[in-house]
Amino acid sequence: MLIVGELINTSRKVIKENVENRNSEYIQGIAKKQVEAGADYLDVNCSDMMDNELTVMKWLIENIQAVVDTPLCIDTTNAEVMEAGLSLAKNGQPMVNSISGEKEWCKKILPLIKKYGAKVVALCMDDRGIPDNAEDRLRVAHELVKELIQIGVAPDDIYLDPLTKTLSTGDKAGLEVFDSIRLIKQAFPDVHLISAISNVSFGLPNRKILNRVFLVQTLTVGMDAFIVDPLDRKLMGYLYVSQALLGQDPFCRSYLAAHRKGIYSD
Amino acid sequence: MLIVGELINTSRKVIKENVENRNSEYIQGIAKKQVEAGADYLDVNCSDMMDNELTVMKWLIENIQAVVDTPLCIDTTNAEVMEAGLSLAKNGQPMVNSISGEKEWCKKILPLIKKYGAKVVALCMDDRGIPDNAEDRLRVAHELVKELIQIGVAPDDIYLDPLTKTLSTGDKAGLEVFDSIRLIKQAFPDVHLISAISNVSFGLPNRKILNRVFLVQTLTVGMDAFIVDPLDRKLMGYLYVSQALLGQDPFCRSYLAAHRKGIYSD
Repeated sequence: MLIVGELINTSRKVIKENVENRNSEYIQGIAKKQVEAGADYLDVNCSDMMDNELTVMKWLIENIQAVVDTPLCIDTTNAEVMEAGLSLAKNGQPMVNSISGEKEWCKKILPLIKKYGAKVVALCMDDRGIPDNAEDRLRVAHELVKELIQIGVAPDDIYLDPLTKTLSTGDKAGLEVFDSIRLIKQAFPDVHLISAISNVSFGLPNRKILNRVFLVQTLTVGMDAFIVDPLDRKLMGYLYVSQALLGQDPFCRSYLAAHRKGIYSD
Repeated sequence: MLIVGELINTSRKVIKENVENRNSEYIQGIAKKQVEAGADYLDVNCSDMMDNELTVMKWLIENIQAVVDTPLCIDTTNAEVMEAGLSLAKNGQPMVNSISGEKEWCKKILPLIKKYGAKVVALCMDDRGIPDNAEDRLRVAHELVKELIQIGVAPDDIYLDPLTKTLSTGDKAGLEVFDSIRLIKQAFPDVHLISAISNVSFGLPNRKILNRVFLVQTLTVGMDAFIVDPLDRKLMGYLYVSQALLGQDPFCRSYLAAHRKGIYSD
């Protein structure tokens, strides 16, 4: 299981404000809290800072690495910012978020993945957009894995994201993802599967409960990495319960430890 | 999806007391509440009434059928009580709970299943007890399905229960069930899978959360019937969320209806 903490993202208002005020203490606090709550990687995204993205990315990485040893997941669609981020990321193997089957972006990002020996989030979409079914996601996955393996990325460093549409606009959105996970897992048993989980519930009520169940379900059919808010204690609680029931938690140790920490309340 | 309401069981103290006092109103209230909450069948179990089991079974069935039209699931290990129950059960096709691979019981119960054209819960265990792994459960399932088909039971009337051990005594207890569901579903795509869900959490803290996640997980890998407390609103809420995410709820109608009924609280 690999948990990427998603909170350091300037599309979140509170982060943006504190970044604009260069409030190191606040950002460092969020970094530390995510690590304490179980994040294995910290996502860093300041895409919406426009012309300032490069400066802010550098500032964020320096500040985060001053207080935690957790490796970073550089999250940008700007190749210059990606390279700057990867070159500064010193807390172990960095992660690229993300590559996809989009040709132009591939050309720019593949050399950086190779140069910095990064783990990589690989989105199952291409220039035609997000596929409408599991089979087409598998087709994109095949292309992505092929390209990544060719430049020397180990299967264990590849995290395929099947991409989740919103359930409110298509009632097979969840099923498509479960089917994609099964197909991809069968084709590439050594490659990981990753997802952010909140998109599925957009536009529906009780989003937190929907997200929680979606996490349990994707985990049950084979997903093994998540980009989430690790400070959502209930969500993390459901993660530990799921792992225990899936036989991934020897003697239910993590589950019982989480219980003792008071993570469960009904 | 088939929901069997489990509450009318004299092993529950409050039911036993009200049965002993022949409090029709209380029992009928529990029957009605379970139906209103979504039960498709009502389980009736008074096994622990010892010598009185036959009398109590008749009294329960008469009282329940006086107020609801929901079919009954006759739950006993006494063949005489089973026959009496099946002969009295007039609310549509009755259900037998349960048959297993135990030879002596099979001899007694198969003729009753045939005579009354009942649906049947078939436990994946035999004279050697509950199997230790999914493959052995599948072996027992093969024998049970063969025997049931031979006497004319339709696959659609068979509900195989893979049987769940407790997670506290074996940390692969959940995984065993998921693997069993997958194997059985593959071998018998037209047969249903059913389970009571509370056994898995015995001896562990936060049992309700464990049960809820186990329900979501088993549903995700192919279970389509549950013996549960339908008055547990949170549990039922998780059932509707799971079905919506699995693409089993056109336009998320049941999910949204449950939301409007106020079933979700975080």
